[in-house]
Amino acid sequence: MCQLLGMNCNVPTDICFSFKGFCERGGVTDEHKDGWGITFFEGKGCRSFLDPHPSASSVISSLVKSYPIKSCNVIAHIRKATLGEVNLENTHPFTRELWGQYWVFAHNGDLKGFHPTLAGDYLPVGATDSEQAFCLILERLRRSFETKPAAGAIAAVLQEAADEISGHGTFNFLLSNGECMFAHCTTKLSYLVRQHPFSTARLKDKDIELDFSEVTTPDDRVAVIATEPLTTNETWIGFPKGRVLVFRDGHIADPVN
Amino acid sequence: MCQLLGMNCNVPTDICFSFKGFCERGGVTDEHKDGWGITFFEGKGCRSFLDPHPSASSVISSLVKSYPIKSCNVIAHIRKATLGEVNLENTHPFTRELWGQYWVFAHNGDLKGFHPTLAGDYLPVGATDSEQAFCLILERLRRSFETKPAAGAIAAVLQEAADEISGHGTFNFLLSNGECMFAHCTTKLSYLVRQHPFSTARLKDKDIELDFSEVTTPDDRVAVIATEPLTTNETWIGFPKGRVLVFRDGHIADPVN
Repeated sequence: MCQLLGMNCNVPTDICFSFKGFCERGGVTDEHKDGWGITFFEGKGCRSFLDPHPSASSVISSLVKSYPIKSCNVIAHIRKATLGEVNLENTHPFTRELWGQYWVFAHNGDLKGFHPTLAGDYLPVGATDSEQAFCLILERLRRSFETKPAAGAIAAVLQEAADEISGHGTFNFLLSNGECMFAHCTTKLSYLVRQHPFSTARLKDKDIELDFSEVTTPDDRVAVIATEPLTTNETWIGFPKGRVLVFRDGHIADPVN
Repeated sequence: MCQLLGMNCNVPTDICFSFKGFCERGGVTDEHKDGWGITFFEGKGCRSFLDPHPSASSVISSLVKSYPIKSCNVIAHIRKATLGEVNLENTHPFTRELWGQYWVFAHNGDLKGFHPTLAGDYLPVGATDSEQAFCLILERLRRSFETKPAAGAIAAVLQEAADEISGHGTFNFLLSNGECMFAHCTTKLSYLVRQHPFSTARLKDKDIELDFSEVTTPDDRVAVIATEPLTTNETWIGFPKGRVLVFRDGHIADPVN
């Protein structure tokens, strides 16, 4: 299994604090040490740091932990390999282009007997069930809409695909096109929204505290999504099971449009 | 304009030495300071480091210069913006998936009046002529072959596309799928092949020497491709103009198959 971390904000924000705690789970406080990756959207572009080494000790994760990259949409993943070897092509997040936007995906869970027939629009490079699911989802989106529709229409296609794929096993995922963060939970995923008045948060996996009131403005809003809560003194909300949620501008967009 | 750096080897090799010299051209010895990027293939996977900051002073390029990542195919680019703002989505190399492989592309040159009609298989995310050319090339490849053909057949499609696109201006490019490095030159591109007996190379842009005989085995072979020669004491060979060359296992594959 694996763990997911996502962030969706209304202003570009760095993820250093959360990522420091998250990385500890890749070899120190937990066993997810078969690689890690993180993708930051910046404008329409995105950049990924992917590494098949443990996140807790990786030279590259040290850089990401200490170098503040500001982004409105970030997806990170630490891996405990089940299907597919420990190597770069099996390291999440995965990225593809659709409708002239990058789409980024990371998955937590195992899918049993999941061998979708793909038309070829998107094909997996690695050997994970996760990348197959991502390719199937993008194929469905591409074939449903010629150009990018509203987020609600995207969420509806995702919901249908997620319902179907969830029949094969655990399917917690994060998906973003740099505008919204789509999230789906079948077993375990939590979130919180940090907004004014900001307070101090304390990491669960590392002895670090941060007073967010010192690094934010009153208009900032940040949603953080994680497989397991990252802090000990904030209230994390469990995701409803089996429903695709859409985060935009740092909170759940509802009704979706 | 921009500068290109490519490496193709028969065994995974790090590019730290060449990259150290190359990065100096992004703000110190030359003016290509509008971002930089580098992509390493490792197995079927690839990882990119992309940064809109100058390569000579970037925190991330410092990491890449000092952290040896071993790869058989590497493409790097430093940018002097002409078309498209200085931002992440306009930063080369660009990556897309075709036939279940990642394809990576970087371009040096300006294309005038180049506005290809794209069918939608691949669409640019940023605003560069380069990414448009890349999308057009991949579309042609996809529509020419249902599955990956031999490198010679790929090169033939590339040659036709390159001939056409070159009509719009300078079109020096590097393209790799992790197996081969395809290179095309209309104005300026050089290469050399380092092989046994290895000797000492001296960078042109930084006071660094490396004795390759100390870090290689007699079977190693490395082709390095660059817009401008990177070393002062080796013989760099100018590319023939207007011809797609294919590098494999550290030298030019000819006849291509």
